[in-house]
Amino acid sequence: MLVDGKAYRSIWPAADGEAVEIIDQTLLPFIFKVARLSRLSDAARAIRDMQVRGAPLIGATAAYGIWLGLRQGTGDAQLRAIADELIACRPTAVNLAWAVERMLTKLLPLAPETRLEAALYEAEQICAEDVRCNEAIGKHGAALIAALWDKKGRQEPVNLLTHCNAGWLATVDWGTALAPVYAAAAQGIAIHVWVDETRPRNQGASLTAWELGKAGIAHHLIADNAGGHLMQHGLVDLCIVGSDRTTATGDVCNKIGTYLKALAAQANQVPFYVALPGSTVDWRLRDGLAEIPIEERDEAEVLFIQGKDEAGTVRRVAIAPEHCPAFNPAFDVTPAHLVTGLITERGVCKAGREGLSSLYPEQSQHDQHD
Amino acid sequence: MLVDGKAYRSIWPAADGEAVEIIDQTLLPFIFKVARLSRLSDAARAIRDMQVRGAPLIGATAAYGIWLGLRQGTGDAQLRAIADELIACRPTAVNLAWAVERMLTKLLPLAPETRLEAALYEAEQICAEDVRCNEAIGKHGAALIAALWDKKGRQEPVNLLTHCNAGWLATVDWGTALAPVYAAAAQGIAIHVWVDETRPRNQGASLTAWELGKAGIAHHLIADNAGGHLMQHGLVDLCIVGSDRTTATGDVCNKIGTYLKALAAQANQVPFYVALPGSTVDWRLRDGLAEIPIEERDEAEVLFIQGKDEAGTVRRVAIAPEHCPAFNPAFDVTPAHLVTGLITERGVCKAGREGLSSLYPEQSQHDQHD
Repeated sequence: MLVDGKAYRSIWPAADGEAVEIIDQTLLPFIFKVARLSRLSDAARAIRDMQVRGAPLIGATAAYGIWLGLRQGTGDAQLRAIADELIACRPTAVNLAWAVERMLTKLLPLAPETRLEAALYEAEQICAEDVRCNEAIGKHGAALIAALWDKKGRQEPVNLLTHCNAGWLATVDWGTALAPVYAAAAQGIAIHVWVDETRPRNQGASLTAWELGKAGIAHHLIADNAGGHLMQHGLVDLCIVGSDRTTATGDVCNKIGTYLKALAAQANQVPFYVALPGSTVDWRLRDGLAEIPIEERDEAEVLFIQGKDEAGTVRRVAIAPEHCPAFNPAFDVTPAHLVTGLITERGVCKAGREGLSSLYPEQSQHDQHD
Repeated sequence: MLVDGKAYRSIWPAADGEAVEIIDQTLLPFIFKVARLSRLSDAARAIRDMQVRGAPLIGATAAYGIWLGLRQGTGDAQLRAIADELIACRPTAVNLAWAVERMLTKLLPLAPETRLEAALYEAEQICAEDVRCNEAIGKHGAALIAALWDKKGRQEPVNLLTHCNAGWLATVDWGTALAPVYAAAAQGIAIHVWVDETRPRNQGASLTAWELGKAGIAHHLIADNAGGHLMQHGLVDLCIVGSDRTTATGDVCNKIGTYLKALAAQANQVPFYVALPGSTVDWRLRDGLAEIPIEERDEAEVLFIQGKDEAGTVRRVAIAPEHCPAFNPAFDVTPAHLVTGLITERGVCKAGREGLSSLYPEQSQHDQHD
């Protein structure tokens, strides 16, 4: 997508062929800075410290990370150690494990001396597939938005609420939850986005608002607390969020706070959609609440906040009393019964085993226990 | 309550008899500073800029504000102008109008030369009544907490979740939602409080966490997004919040985000109580969602946040892109059907007309239309 007139993806091979480049998302929305990942440790740090974040982009970064790691040696032990190091960076991110496993499956059968080139090729394939996938999600989701616009008489904009950032910065390009927004806007549909700030890491305020601003999409930033009130007053036509991990039964694990918006949407008859690539579905899981471990992150994310002061310096400030303890679960699980539908690259389906199986029939071998 | 070993209320007459003193709550939790209100304009500014906040404390400050205003002249026109100026400061705060009307009812029939002394006396009465009222709320609420502690076998602490600050800083002393916590702790009940940060103004992080820390009550600060997840996992035994305005039918207007927690509480069978003094009930109102106007505050509250940097300087930082628009509704309405009970100074009742009428039978004259 465009940044100040220039087309970017969120990750790309460096021009000199010696590294991978990313946008350092920890500096947004204040500083737009490209970071160079030259070693496996750079890729691991980028994932761990959230210079890259979002399930698909984490997967893409891990794939490139394997290529970077193999530049120090391409033996089986090296390859497995690289994979282990990357997977440990973010335990909840199913795409991370998915991408690493895909790379292992491709690379382990190959002769070590051919693995380096094959790793780069496979990482590029993963990126290209992600972009195609998100374009398809955008197309299917835009049809839902178009239907609401028709229903509203094509006058007032469609009001969409989103949580966290599932935009192009969270993927290689287009995004998942925001792909339908970009596609709808490209079709001339009037759309306005309520952007949840998304405490504690503020991905809505710092990334989604930045993306939408750069794309010229009408939006307002809101406190995470405001969405229920907006829905009570008819100011939200639909919600679209992303998913970090989806069960075969349609439960959705996404950024902490998603569940509260899904409850409010159901209570106020607001359609609540989750946009996700099929790779985000963990076909082994049946009960999201019981089976998905929730990452607990550092309490400092709750106790401190990063922002830009009046002199233009980006700095961290404390927002709580000294020695205040905090608790910081990073995700929550929204049960399938609160989800109106799943927007996938293969179309829109009901959130449940039947809907997912109809779109992904090749996954039915996981269903033998039912 | 105690601050570093010294007993404070949130408002008190200055020792020299020439002013009123308050704790400047805009500086907490970083700086504990007493501010002196010498004129009506000081009191109005303290209310408008939220140096004082919380329904009961706003009422008390307005009452003292009338006294301060009358020091410039005690005629009818002066008195009415003072009242108008104060009421305009915070349109949603029913206690503000309640306190001002009470002062007018008391003072208008009096000879102008006796009004100054009577105003001071009446303001002190309002404060004394608030303290007694909150002590009673604490007693009734503590009984609910004690019952839960018994149910849990008196081993593990009772986990309470609260939103915003309805502690002693929001009242003259004790608080409303936190009065039961302080009373339960004084009875030796093990209690732990989940403190919602409460964006955008962060009253939880800056005031509730500070109060609980000073009182030695176990607590954790959480992002507003986390409460649903905690309830899904059985980590919340009850919620208690305050109310800025309550309808005769039990709908509760409280800080934005309260509604989302009430939805999560109902979905997870967590008791959701609202602690309020009877003065917060607006007996003319029947439908909170339709009838209570919601104050929309400055978008800067969403776009900027105040905190303390590493050098110890309290400063405001931007958390969103430049020119990002924001929308900032300050309150929401929780319908009575989501409220387990109302904890009042007269006891606990169901959230509804019948429950409230049983505790406040003298208000039945408002019911003639039903």
